Amino acid sequence: MKCSKCGSSAVINLHQHHLRLCEAHFLDFYSSMVQRAIEHYTMFWPEDRLLVAVSGGKDSLALWDVLLRLGYQAEGLYISLGIDEGIGYSANSRTMCEKFVAGHHPGALLHVVDLRAEHGCGIPELARSELRGRNKPCAVCGLVKRHIMNRVARDGGFSAIATGHNLDDEVAVLFQNTLHWKAGYLARQAPVLDEREGLARKVKPLVRCYERESAAYALLRGIDYIYDECPFSKGATTNFYKELLNDLEMRSPAAKQQFYLHFLQARDSGQIRFEASDQSTVEGEAEPLLRICTRCGQPTVAQDVCAFCRLWERHGEEKHG
Amino acid sequence: MKCSKCGSSAVINLHQHHLRLCEAHFLDFYSSMVQRAIEHYTMFWPEDRLLVAVSGGKDSLALWDVLLRLGYQAEGLYISLGIDEGIGYSANSRTMCEKFVAGHHPGALLHVVDLRAEHGCGIPELARSELRGRNKPCAVCGLVKRHIMNRVARDGGFSAIATGHNLDDEVAVLFQNTLHWKAGYLARQAPVLDEREGLARKVKPLVRCYERESAAYALLRGIDYIYDECPFSKGATTNFYKELLNDLEMRSPAAKQQFYLHFLQARDSGQIRFEASDQSTVEGEAEPLLRICTRCGQPTVAQDVCAFCRLWERHGEEKHG
Repeated sequence: MKCSKCGSSAVINLHQHHLRLCEAHFLDFYSSMVQRAIEHYTMFWPEDRLLVAVSGGKDSLALWDVLLRLGYQAEGLYISLGIDEGIGYSANSRTMCEKFVAGHHPGALLHVVDLRAEHGCGIPELARSELRGRNKPCAVCGLVKRHIMNRVARDGGFSAIATGHNLDDEVAVLFQNTLHWKAGYLARQAPVLDEREGLARKVKPLVRCYERESAAYALLRGIDYIYDECPFSKGATTNFYKELLNDLEMRSPAAKQQFYLHFLQARDSGQIRFEASDQSTVEGEAEPLLRICTRCGQPTVAQDVCAFCRLWERHGEEKHG
Repeated sequence: MKCSKCGSSAVINLHQHHLRLCEAHFLDFYSSMVQRAIEHYTMFWPEDRLLVAVSGGKDSLALWDVLLRLGYQAEGLYISLGIDEGIGYSANSRTMCEKFVAGHHPGALLHVVDLRAEHGCGIPELARSELRGRNKPCAVCGLVKRHIMNRVARDGGFSAIATGHNLDDEVAVLFQNTLHWKAGYLARQAPVLDEREGLARKVKPLVRCYERESAAYALLRGIDYIYDECPFSKGATTNFYKELLNDLEMRSPAAKQQFYLHFLQARDSGQIRFEASDQSTVEGEAEPLLRICTRCGQPTVAQDVCAFCRLWERHGEEKHG
């Protein structure tokens, strides 16, 4: 297999792009894909300070690496969620982030928020005391991460939070929302969520990169990352959708990319319009009204106290009640 | 397994409806599903004369049977396409239709149009001489069937053409159109296509019935049908989508039904709007402008001669050229 650009030995076959690339040309290709997404969706500029949410996985570390190599000002945020589940998940993933900084970008800043140190317990205990975490702690975990990311971004004066969501992630979410025709969610899903009323701007620079491209990038750049998915994500519907969509991609290379990009194009051009009705106001309104939490001062859709503060309140009552 | 209605031995488990039914209750259930779809989408009334397009397969024969048993005036139309492919496909499917009439509804009228008798050749030869049939004759076949169905419906004064498209068929088409976000097609796909300018009304009364329900209905009613799919449909993308969607349904019973019905609801309620742009005018405009074919007098989107007439014209030139 020869590199389509230089004829030397290729290391990867990108079926969806009809490209076979050698190591050097693939690294270039990946960086340009990210740079083009940043420009195409006007995500940020070189003068912006970015907070990259890193989990120790391939996507977020590849993202941080490529942003720094492209010359952006990017600091990392690792949230230690206190998940062990017999494989030391949180401890290992934190180590990966620290090793990445030490080995690849010794000058880069990694902010760490440790849930157990700050609040006295991690996600598993918190979820156990919480109705919505009865089956899976994922809803609680998502809420906690969004809250902390937003607080750190706001307090640190960052221009945007960058997350490592890749094309496969976005396609799985789009597929899920499309299967149920959730107009509110379909109206909102985007590579950029603008800042508003205390909610930091959110950007997804890897939105055009397939998961296997990030894995290849991390491998070729010598970035060690945590291979395990979060143990709580096992059996998640999103994973089932990803497998289904992989079957689709196998049969029709670029199918996932087209599904996602055609969606954005059709919506941006007005060919397809989504309007949240009364019915979807609660779960997926395009622009839910924001208030300020009377406890923590962060934006919330609740009347007074935000979901994050109420979560810890209930947890405290449970512990002492 | 006990019938959810009467406690006697059940013959089918309808996971998506949380129902197990005995033979008698399943036959009732299937008929009511069809009747409810007819009413819900205001397809037709008892005084309407219907032309049921029958292929000899389970869906169209089940449809014709259930319409007659529900008291509707339904005549059959069988189009002999001249497809043999070593399994006598057309000959066998015609026999199935004739046996159905003789055995189940001896008084029912079956109209037969034989392509070879009328035009001198069948689909395979026609497709071979046609660019668009180079890979698969399916596009040519669809065009021919639509033309003949419309002609017979118009000449016979029928109120509507009823086809046996089931939920699985509709979902596969919806899935295909959604994967590419084809706004024009998504605007049009519906259980009813209204009559307009010489184009007969088209209705799909089985739109809420799963394929396996039609198969069970045919089996229990003693309707013999052709098991083979058309030999040319092997390996079709639609079949691949159907398998993918079956995996989805297996994991989440009712997923297909929800995907389709939520789509119709979201579009009807205006939560989702599709607008055909210039780009999609050619292939899938919501309401393409119709003219009259100067050869056959049938409606066409072409400037003068319709695609059907041009097809035979080119075939004649090829044969004599």
